[in-house]
Amino acid sequence: MIEDKNQSKTPLSELGEFGLIDHLTKDFSIKKKSTVKGIGDDAAVLDFKDEQIVVTTDMLVEGVHFDLSYMPLKHLGYKAMIVNLSDIYAMNAKATQVTVSIAVSNRFPLEAIEALYSGIKTAASLYDVDVVGGDTTSSTTGLIISITAIGTTKSKDVVYRSGAKSNDLLVVTGDLGAAYLGLQVLEREKEVFKVNPQNQPDLENYTYIIERQLKPEARKDIVKLLNDLEVKPTSMIDISDGLSSEIMHLCKESQVGCELYEDKIPLDPQVISTCEEFNLDSTTVALSGGEDYELLFTVSQEDYTKIKANPNFTVIGFMKDKSTGMNLITRAETSIPLKAQGWNSFNN
Amino acid sequence: MIEDKNQSKTPLSELGEFGLIDHLTKDFSIKKKSTVKGIGDDAAVLDFKDEQIVVTTDMLVEGVHFDLSYMPLKHLGYKAMIVNLSDIYAMNAKATQVTVSIAVSNRFPLEAIEALYSGIKTAASLYDVDVVGGDTTSSTTGLIISITAIGTTKSKDVVYRSGAKSNDLLVVTGDLGAAYLGLQVLEREKEVFKVNPQNQPDLENYTYIIERQLKPEARKDIVKLLNDLEVKPTSMIDISDGLSSEIMHLCKESQVGCELYEDKIPLDPQVISTCEEFNLDSTTVALSGGEDYELLFTVSQEDYTKIKANPNFTVIGFMKDKSTGMNLITRAETSIPLKAQGWNSFNN
Repeated sequence: MIEDKNQSKTPLSELGEFGLIDHLTKDFSIKKKSTVKGIGDDAAVLDFKDEQIVVTTDMLVEGVHFDLSYMPLKHLGYKAMIVNLSDIYAMNAKATQVTVSIAVSNRFPLEAIEALYSGIKTAASLYDVDVVGGDTTSSTTGLIISITAIGTTKSKDVVYRSGAKSNDLLVVTGDLGAAYLGLQVLEREKEVFKVNPQNQPDLENYTYIIERQLKPEARKDIVKLLNDLEVKPTSMIDISDGLSSEIMHLCKESQVGCELYEDKIPLDPQVISTCEEFNLDSTTVALSGGEDYELLFTVSQEDYTKIKANPNFTVIGFMKDKSTGMNLITRAETSIPLKAQGWNSFNN
Repeated sequence: MIEDKNQSKTPLSELGEFGLIDHLTKDFSIKKKSTVKGIGDDAAVLDFKDEQIVVTTDMLVEGVHFDLSYMPLKHLGYKAMIVNLSDIYAMNAKATQVTVSIAVSNRFPLEAIEALYSGIKTAASLYDVDVVGGDTTSSTTGLIISITAIGTTKSKDVVYRSGAKSNDLLVVTGDLGAAYLGLQVLEREKEVFKVNPQNQPDLENYTYIIERQLKPEARKDIVKLLNDLEVKPTSMIDISDGLSSEIMHLCKESQVGCELYEDKIPLDPQVISTCEEFNLDSTTVALSGGEDYELLFTVSQEDYTKIKANPNFTVIGFMKDKSTGMNLITRAETSIPLKAQGWNSFNN
């Protein structure tokens, strides 16, 4: 419905596997000094000297993680990169290389895969990473994208999920819940489109939340900012499944409890107005929505002065002794246990 | 038909995504010194000091790369590892870590995924690599496995596809064509089974070729052997798509031609007898069959004495000037151009 369906179409079988790989990867140049050999051998060769290496991988499946009726393929390629890069930044590391594997059915023409790769290429360029390998194969039905991202950092700078201490401040970047609400708007428009394909959706009031869903960004800037501010978080994670679930990961891995203040959770005005329209509770959306790709981290109290004035950061609570549990302090000042309502892909 | 279908079955939705990941990964321990942090954070952390790092990735898709009606899930997990490890060894490197991502539909119970992971674990243990991360998600239909393998080597030891010189000897390990023929036998038995499900297949005459299809091995031993013999190949590739296609990759990347001698191609007696039974030409099977996961490499003439007596190696031809092309010298001593008939996944 958003995509132009009248495009030229070249069947994939015309190129064959090697032809397709050559065609898709010919524009991927090597920019990182650490990439010794990129695409085109049995494996890529990297050289990081005395830095530590971080590695993460994520798989996106059509019909589970994305719906091509409103997700343009270029955006999908971009988002698939963001999902992985975000995990590298959540280790307080620099992303340097990625490998990209796709399985694609014959219903996709070459031009569709080119659109997907152009999104991957745009993200690689913007986030300054080399695409150094991958695999391109056919699938019997849908589209599957599997990306592995590699990054580096000095060993003293790595931030795990497990370092939070009691009394540490809990901090989040940006604002929350927008990506989930963007999805709700797109799902609603899809239903309208099914009934009346001539209907042109008016999405003017939803530009921010739809962009957060279709073209999210990873917080590369935060890793640099924290370094400039000389703040090393005690623990960090990226928000892919929803704030509540991520806080519980930090608490579990760090063996601490926490208090999260409902009135501190950062929300964009468009999130608030759209929640009212959809009759949704904005706190629930922020806690369980997911796909925001913001960073959630803890810092020791003494670092508070370094971060308090920065508009990128919101202190939303603090860590406590494990025995106190993980609690949300509501606007009415009652304490209720946090629940992990992160997206469970096996029930959807 | 080979698998026992009467097993206990736990639906995946009972565990949820995090429960499933915890359950499947709890037995993966860290053994490599270079693994600083494995499963359980946003990314794994690796430390290789001053070694170069090699990275490769491969994706296996149900209905394209495997058929679960004769591929037991444990073997599938094992083979998915082998496919990737083989690429690391083809760089003359040591495999050290892997990440494993799977997408699986609700039709698979927990026990099926456990069987898959037990094969992965067996391979990780046998090939001495750490499983350091991955992703577990649902799919709308089949099973997809995406593995990324990481290895290390000294920079002086890396062997690319591009280093072959005119007059270098072309050498292959093991024997060829067996995996493809094993698949033909299994496909035939599947057809028999469809007609008569009570029929018990007699596979006694096909044990070697079926094992080569269902439980291939990667030639880790060859990397060590070459090192012990003080032979550094000038170029190397693993045989996943068929001898012909791989030779052409080496020639293309190295800018050379070659002569391959039909009578030198190593074939197991079971390959020869099964080719007769199926009325297939054994040379065609070796050239185009694929999935042997043997190593194909070139060495300079002066290294011939170091390898000639070793039963692991067969010299099958030599490299020539690019202008002479890539040719097969038949048993009748005629020269015919090599064709890449490697498996094209978009036509199958």
